[in-house]
Amino acid sequence: MSENSTYAEITEAIRAHDSFILLSHIRPDGDAIGSQLALGHALEAMGKTVHYINEDGLPDNLSFMAESQRIQTPPAEPLDVQVCIALDCATKPRLGENALHAASKAKLWINIDHHISNPAYGDLNHIDSTSPATGQILYQLIKSADMPLPDATRDAIYVAVSTDTGSFQYSNTTAATYEMAADLVRRGLDVGTINAQIYDSNPYRKIELLRSLLNTLQLENDGKVAHWELPYSVKEEYNLKPEDSEDQIDLIRGIDGVVAAAFFEELEDGKIRVSLRAKDDTFNACETAQLFGGGGHARAAGIRMAGPISDAREKVLAAISNAIS
Amino acid sequence: MSENSTYAEITEAIRAHDSFILLSHIRPDGDAIGSQLALGHALEAMGKTVHYINEDGLPDNLSFMAESQRIQTPPAEPLDVQVCIALDCATKPRLGENALHAASKAKLWINIDHHISNPAYGDLNHIDSTSPATGQILYQLIKSADMPLPDATRDAIYVAVSTDTGSFQYSNTTAATYEMAADLVRRGLDVGTINAQIYDSNPYRKIELLRSLLNTLQLENDGKVAHWELPYSVKEEYNLKPEDSEDQIDLIRGIDGVVAAAFFEELEDGKIRVSLRAKDDTFNACETAQLFGGGGHARAAGIRMAGPISDAREKVLAAISNAIS
Repeated sequence: MSENSTYAEITEAIRAHDSFILLSHIRPDGDAIGSQLALGHALEAMGKTVHYINEDGLPDNLSFMAESQRIQTPPAEPLDVQVCIALDCATKPRLGENALHAASKAKLWINIDHHISNPAYGDLNHIDSTSPATGQILYQLIKSADMPLPDATRDAIYVAVSTDTGSFQYSNTTAATYEMAADLVRRGLDVGTINAQIYDSNPYRKIELLRSLLNTLQLENDGKVAHWELPYSVKEEYNLKPEDSEDQIDLIRGIDGVVAAAFFEELEDGKIRVSLRAKDDTFNACETAQLFGGGGHARAAGIRMAGPISDAREKVLAAISNAIS
Repeated sequence: MSENSTYAEITEAIRAHDSFILLSHIRPDGDAIGSQLALGHALEAMGKTVHYINEDGLPDNLSFMAESQRIQTPPAEPLDVQVCIALDCATKPRLGENALHAASKAKLWINIDHHISNPAYGDLNHIDSTSPATGQILYQLIKSADMPLPDATRDAIYVAVSTDTGSFQYSNTTAATYEMAADLVRRGLDVGTINAQIYDSNPYRKIELLRSLLNTLQLENDGKVAHWELPYSVKEEYNLKPEDSEDQIDLIRGIDGVVAAAFFEELEDGKIRVSLRAKDDTFNACETAQLFGGGGHARAAGIRMAGPISDAREKVLAAISNAIS
């Protein structure tokens, strides 16, 4: 089905069942984990049984979140659950093979997401690409359904939305986003503490990573394109974790005159993960990513392609150059 | 007087006069310039004559703001104005000597600020230290007085409040702050564009500076002390401006485990400017600075001492090591 289910329909399905597995995408970010914890704790406050599963488990940088240790990697055997809810995940395979196996006994699939490319792979789907974060959709679902909103849900929604809007800065931030934040503060959210936890924690290895990236920084196309790269050997040398490189690309997208930024990251298997960022409408990151089988949003998209880095760099930079000229 | 004037009293004074000079503090930031532009354009929409004066003029990084070219350095002769409004300035001298001279014909002084230390140096004063930014006080004044809120005022308020809250992150951010942002968006604020202008605009030379600094980064004392340095030759090579290195030291103070950070900067005359930062009460930056004739605050202090960098580094690091052991 491609029609969105209403909040009422989703709520009715939730109320009619007792056991749930909540999933989100591989390499989870704040919106993925935040959405799992936010909805899960609301469900538990309704007396439901909830399993919080992520293919890659909980990233270190989100371990400050209340009850985040509930996020587990998939067990070997399928869980005995009635319903699987996929959160913030644009395609079913991005939930991860082991996570899908863990959820394979679920008879009902609910798919809640804000990625425009989501093909509505659930039995019930609510895809709202106008929402800056899946966390904001859950906030609206919970409020409209008069579901419980415990403190762990409140804080998790904030983390989800703050991280997916770049701290309320991106163009997807709406009046409703700020109003939601105001409501969460009125419900007792500690703004200073949670933001220090999200944004002010720098392991030394992240500084070493930044230095290494800056030493590969190049500008192209008269300064309109910035790119840098990370060989797998450097990740090993500094013992980097996957989440360490997230968002670092914002620094070079922010250079005056740059309209497109690219980050080439060599993976353990030799494949190259390419992150693309657009500063404005001059460049559409998603369109260029799609040329190589990738996808995402207009401002932020990704590709996974064959290596070595030098080949991937040459191809992608040529496509970017073509796109912006 | 130490009692706050009400918004109604301030509005009455504004309505009763025709010509205004608006001032803010030296080395102006987003809240200083934003407050001047926000109130000034509301006054102009009421038919008032407004002079926008700052001792140091408009900083480059705020020149994206609509009508920001109206911010001028003080003229040599006092301006013919009835009212001076001081914005976001904790003490009268911090308005600057030339700015004070330019305002010397004003018969009425209005002082609007959010610094708790403000001694209420105006004839009418509204000091609200619970407000995260002077811009938020002006928003409340304008709304309560039903003054005009033109687009330039709307955008300037957002810049003022966003910059003084670290993009809605600091503990001074309240529910009212987020609600204000929601209202500004409903009034047509372009969130994506204005935030890109505030935060995503780094001259390339600042990135080159960061790379150069990171390549000199060292940790000492089992990771408790971080330091980096900037030879004068690098400043010349990248054509750096004095403000370029401001706040960069926050990055290394923020490394997990670091309690003291030091930045050694070679000046044109060969002297060394040392910036010291403390993360918490483990290290008192001011006490160490005073050993070398410098000074400042417990968390942030400075020294100017003889070069070369290697000598200054050796002496200051020894003193820091001594202080924290």
